[in-house]
Amino acid sequence: METEMENGNVSQKWCFKGNELLVKSSAVSVRGVLNMVVGNLNPDDPRTVIPLGHGDPSPFPSFRTAAEAENSVSEALYSAKFNGYASTVGILPARKAVAEHLSCDLPYKLSPDDVYLTSGCAQAIEVILTVLARPNANILLPKPGFPHYEARALFSNIQIRYFDLLPEHDWEVDLDAVEALSDENTIAMVIINPGNPCGNVYKVEHLKRVAETARKLGILVISDEVYYHLTFGSNPFVPMGVFASIAPVITLGSISKRWMVPGWRLGWLVTNDPNNILKKQGIVDSIIGFLNISTDPATFVQGALSQIIEKTKADFFAKIKDMLRETAELCYSKVKEIPCITCPSRPEGGLFVMVRLNLSLLENIEDDVDFCLKLAKEESVIVLPGVALGVKNWLRITFAVEPSSLVDGLHRMKAFYERHAKKQ
Amino acid sequence: METEMENGNVSQKWCFKGNELLVKSSAVSVRGVLNMVVGNLNPDDPRTVIPLGHGDPSPFPSFRTAAEAENSVSEALYSAKFNGYASTVGILPARKAVAEHLSCDLPYKLSPDDVYLTSGCAQAIEVILTVLARPNANILLPKPGFPHYEARALFSNIQIRYFDLLPEHDWEVDLDAVEALSDENTIAMVIINPGNPCGNVYKVEHLKRVAETARKLGILVISDEVYYHLTFGSNPFVPMGVFASIAPVITLGSISKRWMVPGWRLGWLVTNDPNNILKKQGIVDSIIGFLNISTDPATFVQGALSQIIEKTKADFFAKIKDMLRETAELCYSKVKEIPCITCPSRPEGGLFVMVRLNLSLLENIEDDVDFCLKLAKEESVIVLPGVALGVKNWLRITFAVEPSSLVDGLHRMKAFYERHAKKQ
Repeated sequence: METEMENGNVSQKWCFKGNELLVKSSAVSVRGVLNMVVGNLNPDDPRTVIPLGHGDPSPFPSFRTAAEAENSVSEALYSAKFNGYASTVGILPARKAVAEHLSCDLPYKLSPDDVYLTSGCAQAIEVILTVLARPNANILLPKPGFPHYEARALFSNIQIRYFDLLPEHDWEVDLDAVEALSDENTIAMVIINPGNPCGNVYKVEHLKRVAETARKLGILVISDEVYYHLTFGSNPFVPMGVFASIAPVITLGSISKRWMVPGWRLGWLVTNDPNNILKKQGIVDSIIGFLNISTDPATFVQGALSQIIEKTKADFFAKIKDMLRETAELCYSKVKEIPCITCPSRPEGGLFVMVRLNLSLLENIEDDVDFCLKLAKEESVIVLPGVALGVKNWLRITFAVEPSSLVDGLHRMKAFYERHAKKQ
Repeated sequence: METEMENGNVSQKWCFKGNELLVKSSAVSVRGVLNMVVGNLNPDDPRTVIPLGHGDPSPFPSFRTAAEAENSVSEALYSAKFNGYASTVGILPARKAVAEHLSCDLPYKLSPDDVYLTSGCAQAIEVILTVLARPNANILLPKPGFPHYEARALFSNIQIRYFDLLPEHDWEVDLDAVEALSDENTIAMVIINPGNPCGNVYKVEHLKRVAETARKLGILVISDEVYYHLTFGSNPFVPMGVFASIAPVITLGSISKRWMVPGWRLGWLVTNDPNNILKKQGIVDSIIGFLNISTDPATFVQGALSQIIEKTKADFFAKIKDMLRETAELCYSKVKEIPCITCPSRPEGGLFVMVRLNLSLLENIEDDVDFCLKLAKEESVIVLPGVALGVKNWLRITFAVEPSSLVDGLHRMKAFYERHAKKQ
């Protein structure tokens, strides 16, 4: 193989270089932090690694997707009707199915033209944070939150301002902070409901207050409902779109969590816009523009969507809810037995719970990252340090794993605590 | 439903608006122009519409994908091993399979780390045109070309400079023009081989001259090989990566065309970089950064990829080549019978041919767009006006349809000519 030297041209100059903003935007990610923790595992520990760090229960037998969903995709595949390109906004039968599906929870009917299919909820986030980009714009993001919003806002040159979620108030949005943070360049606020990473489910009254605040500030509400209907506590799931007549709402979702198939990469962005504000402000045209020059979800998965929604039996959803209720409860009660971590509220939805780390009870543990690194090394348990989500000295624990693994993992965390507990 | 008025707040102000660059970037597209032509069809014409405008033969029975490919996807789906998130660069077995597959045509071995899986070739284009973006950069694009490059360059604020492909020289790159157009801010040039829209296949000597020119100018070669091995003339397919030791090459490809499954959305970006120039210039880190904050191809399609490549029989590829050879030849000979269009060279690859429109032989036809609009209305035949690809008064004809449709379509074009021919 030739080298630069052999070509007799040592000083060859190349005019291209990489885009540093991409590197910078992707630097802080759940995956990056988890990789660091996983990298600290002790390969000599004969025990199984307990993965309580990431949010993908699909590999666990208890969380296998519905047979009807698999069959629907297979039928669409073998029909050979969906091997070609789809419309950039998504194929009509699939958009129609999503519109009808989501309208069940709304006081009005969505039209298929309100629905844009995306390659997972991740692409829906990418769409809206590209569509909203303009010079000097800022966006309000929750802390703790989901770092993909931060990454895409950074890449779109949208300034980020964080508002707190209040652990002692069921992780409700600190709406006073939202008002204090906003100015004439604030374009939107993001909520994630059911909550990632907090495992909370917002009450309908709180959602209404969110809408009223957004209206007062003249901003859009981006409601990430990727965990929609994964609720198992006292608060039912209520979509933010219920209050879209107060302030326009962009709802983001997917089949990833409800059907436990994040790898199928089928999501949606929905405009809840009864007053046509998003249309008037040029948001709808920009969404269509984005999708015209971007990639789409696989056509045959789109082709399967109406059947996936129609044919999946209530039993499947009930089984998943029961599993999550059981593991969430198990997690909540076992955490109570570990003095150095406390859970401010019982998880009621989603796949995660946030626990506060009390370092004063521990010896030689510097912070959340140090805790997670040592826990990985000594106990082969993976947990996400809160710093990855914007909150230092918290931990995010996934309870959506096999119950036996969860019990094992939390017992090991307890042993870890006992070994590191400060001597009184 | 509440309205603005009913809220007693007529002057409600909203701080967000759409991103005009998205609308502008997506304005000129093959799809947009085709939609306009399709919109001019006469609904009262009882004849079938003949679609010679777009490049997706997957709906035609003669071009149905291989059974082995469908079975591989179905097996991956039902294995339930690929329902979860994939690594952002793609799962290792799939990257390994692509590396081995493409290395067959190269004088060196690609590593799996040279391969990045993307959601179709369209996302691979998006990756590289985002990675290369920097202030004042310009890129050299072929004319005629594929408008997705234009759209993504516009969106990345990369200035576009067009070089001609030479119709009388088998659509080779006008390398003198490439040199004349470039300056110290030129970062890359794009070639598409086998050619879209020209149906040409570059000789190995020409590819070497492309590499030498790129080296002289210090620019990257982006080689779009999405039609790789869809060749049926005298020139075999040679990947640009053969000359990567002269100048670094980014190869873009997918299973979309070779397996006739564009809707499966599985493509790749490959760094052909034996001298590690892309690494040194930060391109590799930027690619990884892009993929870390973007969506991925469906995991189970990734999971199927090694089996798709391994199990698809030579018979399938031979059958597709034979079909394309037959339809290309049919198209070439039938076009000769229509005096107002001429084909500068016999198509040898891909799915399309470009024909020159001689308006002086026609009455009351203003230009290529007018020709296509009237052809659609009067004959229910869809053909793409060249202006969508940067060349006015040319037409792009897809020959990759059922042979009987192609014959029918070209007979109708002949009838159209005869009706509109200028009286001598």
